[in-house]
Amino acid sequence: MFKEKFREGIISAKQFDREDIEYILKKGKEMIKIKNSNLLQGKILATLFFEPSTRTRLSFESAMYRLGGNVIGFHSGDVSSIKKGESIADTIRTVENYSDCIVMRHSLEGAATMAAKFAKIPIINAGSGSGEHPTQALLDLLTITEELGSLDGLNIGLMGDLKYGRTVHSLSILLSNFDVNVYFISPTELRMRNRDKDFLQHREVKYKEITNYRKILNILDVLYMTRIQKERFVDTEEYEKIKDFYIFRHNDLNNTKDNFRLLHPLPRITEISPDVDSSEKAIYFKQTYYGIPMRKALLAELMAK
Amino acid sequence: MFKEKFREGIISAKQFDREDIEYILKKGKEMIKIKNSNLLQGKILATLFFEPSTRTRLSFESAMYRLGGNVIGFHSGDVSSIKKGESIADTIRTVENYSDCIVMRHSLEGAATMAAKFAKIPIINAGSGSGEHPTQALLDLLTITEELGSLDGLNIGLMGDLKYGRTVHSLSILLSNFDVNVYFISPTELRMRNRDKDFLQHREVKYKEITNYRKILNILDVLYMTRIQKERFVDTEEYEKIKDFYIFRHNDLNNTKDNFRLLHPLPRITEISPDVDSSEKAIYFKQTYYGIPMRKALLAELMAK
Amino acid sequence: MFKEKFREGIISAKQFDREDIEYILKKGKEMIKIKNSNLLQGKILATLFFEPSTRTRLSFESAMYRLGGNVIGFHSGDVSSIKKGESIADTIRTVENYSDCIVMRHSLEGAATMAAKFAKIPIINAGSGSGEHPTQALLDLLTITEELGSLDGLNIGLMGDLKYGRTVHSLSILLSNFDVNVYFISPTELRMRNRDKDFLQHREVKYKEITNYRKILNILDVLYMTRIQKERFVDTEEYEKIKDFYIFRHNDLNNTKDNFRLLHPLPRITEISPDVDSSEKAIYFKQTYYGIPMRKALLAELMAK
Repeated sequence: MFKEKFREGIISAKQFDREDIEYILKKGKEMIKIKNSNLLQGKILATLFFEPSTRTRLSFESAMYRLGGNVIGFHSGDVSSIKKGESIADTIRTVENYSDCIVMRHSLEGAATMAAKFAKIPIINAGSGSGEHPTQALLDLLTITEELGSLDGLNIGLMGDLKYGRTVHSLSILLSNFDVNVYFISPTELRMRNRDKDFLQHREVKYKEITNYRKILNILDVLYMTRIQKERFVDTEEYEKIKDFYIFRHNDLNNTKDNFRLLHPLPRITEISPDVDSSEKAIYFKQTYYGIPMRKALLAELMAK
Repeated sequence: MFKEKFREGIISAKQFDREDIEYILKKGKEMIKIKNSNLLQGKILATLFFEPSTRTRLSFESAMYRLGGNVIGFHSGDVSSIKKGESIADTIRTVENYSDCIVMRHSLEGAATMAAKFAKIPIINAGSGSGEHPTQALLDLLTITEELGSLDGLNIGLMGDLKYGRTVHSLSILLSNFDVNVYFISPTELRMRNRDKDFLQHREVKYKEITNYRKILNILDVLYMTRIQKERFVDTEEYEKIKDFYIFRHNDLNNTKDNFRLLHPLPRITEISPDVDSSEKAIYFKQTYYGIPMRKALLAELMAK
Repeated sequence: MFKEKFREGIISAKQFDREDIEYILKKGKEMIKIKNSNLLQGKILATLFFEPSTRTRLSFESAMYRLGGNVIGFHSGDVSSIKKGESIADTIRTVENYSDCIVMRHSLEGAATMAAKFAKIPIINAGSGSGEHPTQALLDLLTITEELGSLDGLNIGLMGDLKYGRTVHSLSILLSNFDVNVYFISPTELRMRNRDKDFLQHREVKYKEITNYRKILNILDVLYMTRIQKERFVDTEEYEKIKDFYIFRHNDLNNTKDNFRLLHPLPRITEISPDVDSSEKAIYFKQTYYGIPMRKALLAELMAK
């Protein structure tokens, strides 16, 4: 049972096998039809964002309200006791007494894992440094399956910052449960890290690493682009050199299949030109929409009786 | 119909003709009597404040709760993806998927107009740089009509920073629909901008520009004071020179009519001396109270079935 | 009647006599059993935090939601009109028009007292500089009485920063209504201030001032530790010298009574070693839990019909 298996929360995409994913995608699909409900009336979600967020925090909060619950939290480490030197473990052992579930984002990779170790209530990892962002990857899969029907057999390109990009880490792990061909497209400096590739090899995922996306654009069903993340670079000069490595433009769409879909977890800076936005193949704003039903499904699983 | 005309939101005072204003004032008046209702149950308001606010944000949020709805949002550009370089258009096309209406404040004059161009849900302009602040002007009119009965025939002074003051811009535009005499009182450096005066001349508003308010204080029915806004000055020295240009004191009240009323959108710094606060003619705190019924009326019009 | 006596709010522990404390402890005890209710449906709590907070703000907000109410507010003076130079009095006379009760934290000692002077609705002091933090002291008493049964006859040590620590100020004032032996344990530089000691002497409290807690550890029923607060020191070097003056470790527990309990208002930095956390005698996380029923009791008294 999903509820039982995930009673400690959603920490990593590695927790999910194919059955779990298919179950939560089905629940997400059901939530598309249920705009408002009272399923979580009387429940309180805590959103602890030590790093800034627009999409993830606001969509979790919106999802919670749509289910009849309430929300407490903070949007920056500066306004909480973290500033006074409190440890994550202490913050969690406090906030668990005020709420029924904690959504947290932190700049440290191990933060959510550590939080779950101490908490008596479920923890949802809403981004842990360069590590993972599993609920983003789940909504990405809901987007793809709603738009293209099925995952099996698809050619999927993950492009941009594959080294520090937590969304592509979680997404590639989830995809390893399906029969897909994965293309890791990045500048040499931002390739997937060995530990991530080792995991995928162990799962026998068929993947290729390439630099020039135009070489394979015509065979892709999905291209998942990501931002080069300034905040992960120690050296600003290095960021400046690489930030415009990829710019996807409207005429790139000419070389794509009819059912090709362009996704992006957003925010987007310059890597997708605004002239792409109007195409039906560009579904990154629709993708934000799917965040609500998927997060409603997850909150319901973790908190409803 | 108001609902139909304003389905894209409340962006500028220029959208309003006399009939619209009278309609929404009537609705605001009705909301004074209805403390709580369930009119907006299940609805979500997003408050996106890229610039700081106490009054505007908190009163919109209070109004939304009083109508049974919920609120998501951020209080500073620092805690959202703006910090990562996201455009307003992208933020709007995301947040519209999480909410039913967006209230936004931004330092750029064209921000709300641009947001409305991209949004599928209503946008409310809660302050766009030095441009406009239409919902403040509407609550100002509710205050005046509740306190003095009618607008027609009144002598109204707008005083302080008329160049950068967004509230006086919106208020003077709304007043152009009524038979009022307007006095623009400011230091020479902070006169109404030509583009604003051109609009009023086009509407055949009777206005005079003066510097010394004491010369006309005895004929005014309403004096609407504003703060000299430090944040709009590039040169701090210039601000320091001009910030105490006007200080309204208790003995100024001796030269005013019995029904004279002093308004201010607040915050007030030094421009109204605290010894004025206790006078019945000083109604700037009462004015904040009228923000709730007016914003309830606007939210209800934009979101209720 | 409690409601009548505290209609201006909870500003100082000095407002409370023994009967008031026993009354609100009884109400807090009752709230432990009532997880959710609709007692404050339609009510709005404003949380105005000019200084950062995790525990206090989030527990007030959680308590308010558990009683069916709603919450507006800000978490930092930076995102409000304070930044523009607004006075506390003006902020209060505004926000009282948007809400039914105001919880505020401010770096100035007299802030809450001043706010209450201007407000028409109840003010709750959630920390006023180095002055007081009365609701924390009330939840501390709920914790002690729930864990140890009764206050009379207990030996209670208050340890750490007794000079600037607002929680120990409020707690020692509340304790002065009971037949307890109080030990003020601190480095010489951080002793209770004379004005606080004068108050306790006037109330004929039996207290001793000591530096080495190990000398009396074996007779204590309760040790209430506090953080040396970096933010109260003007001189960082002085803080660095004194910050690790006390470190309570697991082997300290060997010299304590069976029913000994270690409390801390949190956040804790280094003053309690993590190896103490697992002991049943360490109840500082349980203590955060008691914040919810106590704050529910207070909100209900101040706002319910």
